Amino acid sequence: MRAAVGRLDPALRPAVAYHLGWADAEGNPVAGDGGKGVRPALAVLSAEAVGAPSAVGVPGAVAVELVHNFSLMHDDVVDGDRERRHRPTVWALFGMGEAIIAGDALQTLAVEVLLDTGGRAAPRAAASLVRATQAMIAGQASDMAFESREQVSPEECTRMEAAKTGALLGFAASAGAELADATPARVDALREFGTQLGLAFQAIDDLLGIWGAPSVTGKPVASDLRSQKKSLPVVLALASTTPEADQLRALFANAPLDDAAVARAALLIEAAGARHATEEWATRHLDAALAALATAEPVRSAHDDLTELAVFVTRREF
Amino acid sequence: MRAAVGRLDPALRPAVAYHLGWADAEGNPVAGDGGKGVRPALAVLSAEAVGAPSAVGVPGAVAVELVHNFSLMHDDVVDGDRERRHRPTVWALFGMGEAIIAGDALQTLAVEVLLDTGGRAAPRAAASLVRATQAMIAGQASDMAFESREQVSPEECTRMEAAKTGALLGFAASAGAELADATPARVDALREFGTQLGLAFQAIDDLLGIWGAPSVTGKPVASDLRSQKKSLPVVLALASTTPEADQLRALFANAPLDDAAVARAALLIEAAGARHATEEWATRHLDAALAALATAEPVRSAHDDLTELAVFVTRREF
Repeated sequence: MRAAVGRLDPALRPAVAYHLGWADAEGNPVAGDGGKGVRPALAVLSAEAVGAPSAVGVPGAVAVELVHNFSLMHDDVVDGDRERRHRPTVWALFGMGEAIIAGDALQTLAVEVLLDTGGRAAPRAAASLVRATQAMIAGQASDMAFESREQVSPEECTRMEAAKTGALLGFAASAGAELADATPARVDALREFGTQLGLAFQAIDDLLGIWGAPSVTGKPVASDLRSQKKSLPVVLALASTTPEADQLRALFANAPLDDAAVARAALLIEAAGARHATEEWATRHLDAALAALATAEPVRSAHDDLTELAVFVTRREF
Repeated sequence: MRAAVGRLDPALRPAVAYHLGWADAEGNPVAGDGGKGVRPALAVLSAEAVGAPSAVGVPGAVAVELVHNFSLMHDDVVDGDRERRHRPTVWALFGMGEAIIAGDALQTLAVEVLLDTGGRAAPRAAASLVRATQAMIAGQASDMAFESREQVSPEECTRMEAAKTGALLGFAASAGAELADATPARVDALREFGTQLGLAFQAIDDLLGIWGAPSVTGKPVASDLRSQKKSLPVVLALASTTPEADQLRALFANAPLDDAAVARAALLIEAAGARHATEEWATRHLDAALAALATAEPVRSAHDDLTELAVFVTRREF
């Protein structure tokens, strides 16, 4: 990552280093965790899964992390979010123009990193990356469109989440295998593992967006309810044939919600059975992910690591 | 272009069709010119220049037009410009989030279009595109940084303009040849032709930004002076050892400039000899472009068309 970011124009590096948690606002180095690192771990393990050295997966790991961070940077501008991981967002600190241009640079850099690896597998991996990026962007567009809509069906919501989160995790979980020139069947199975894991992961994220502790999420309590985000628990509750669905609709009609209304909305969603249904949904897709993993016939040690990672990211603390 | 844009998520198409001049704000088809089309023309002619059918250059033409339009869409957000080509900009009409996400989608689509053409030349062309895109973004970052700086040297200014405009025109002018698998020497010569042409083109654009008629530029009179843009005529005037340089500095110290101050600034820049120097600069780089074109040993008809195009875009009406 540092080698890749070092290729960027010097004018863009401070905002990127800050965003990645490598530097503070003044450019001084800091020891940060820089996010969960799930995506790069998947990419490296997917190389190992098909018997290749982990180094083969590294360009895929870097590329997916660059795309993920480009999307975070732009999302923060689009959503007007001033805080991420307990720190001001790039646009809040460096300005909107800087955040847009630095994000553009990361997106471009991701493709450069993959194509520069050379070999006949690199263009295929790059094509997979841009396909996943395009799906992610389409998911973001749907997500944005949903916020101004009153009604979103659970099917629309899950299709959006599959695009927004699943596609890039699908790329991450297969990038190393694709760079290692594995058979299409194994690459596809690993991609399916990542896509399903993404769906489970996003459902957990949606639960955290309502019931997560601010110390865990780095966001205000129930921030997704405040922004009237059509996340899975909300959509399932509104689509349920329960008295709570109507009460929730009435509550949402009086935006913006104050603290009491937010707390009441969370209780109504739970009472409508949507918290439980979302948990079940996450479990179902974790199971599907692990089934897909098995069909990829991964090397034993990578199988165990990928399973552990999958279980870890879908069992986050509330 | 229509086939490529048709691949985008339906939620993103209205803003893109509007931006490209294909549709009005309500989505009704309109007969617009959709911009000058210089870049796609260069890409197609560069295939012909090396003896390939023009169709070989089409994916390059589409890719360069997509990247160019992604950058316009994001630039309008970054610069806060509410009007382009006598119409409201995408962000002014559809919102900032929409403009950012639609721009991201176009950038990704450009790489998809090139990689999907297949063949051994496609990954090389895609690598050239992302390299040019990265240079363009670096140029935009410098441009943005310059606006808040008091002093910018002519060298810094021209390096910025080479990156911001020259790199993508360099790609455009060689994309068709690269897709036709021409020799590296010919591809490089055509790229140099485009890069030099881009420098001449940008200098003319800078002149139009001060002395261009609003009916031609689609922007307010002397809009570059109002925004205190460090364009080449301004930088050359400020760097000149003339009394006008000091008067201009004094004028710029009292931002924002009113109409009288803008008119006076334009006169001072001309009196300092910077209008003439910029015109000479444009001529010099047009000559360098045509010299580079000759070394590419282009097919006669393509040579003539490229020469005509180069002369045309650097002789725009004021």
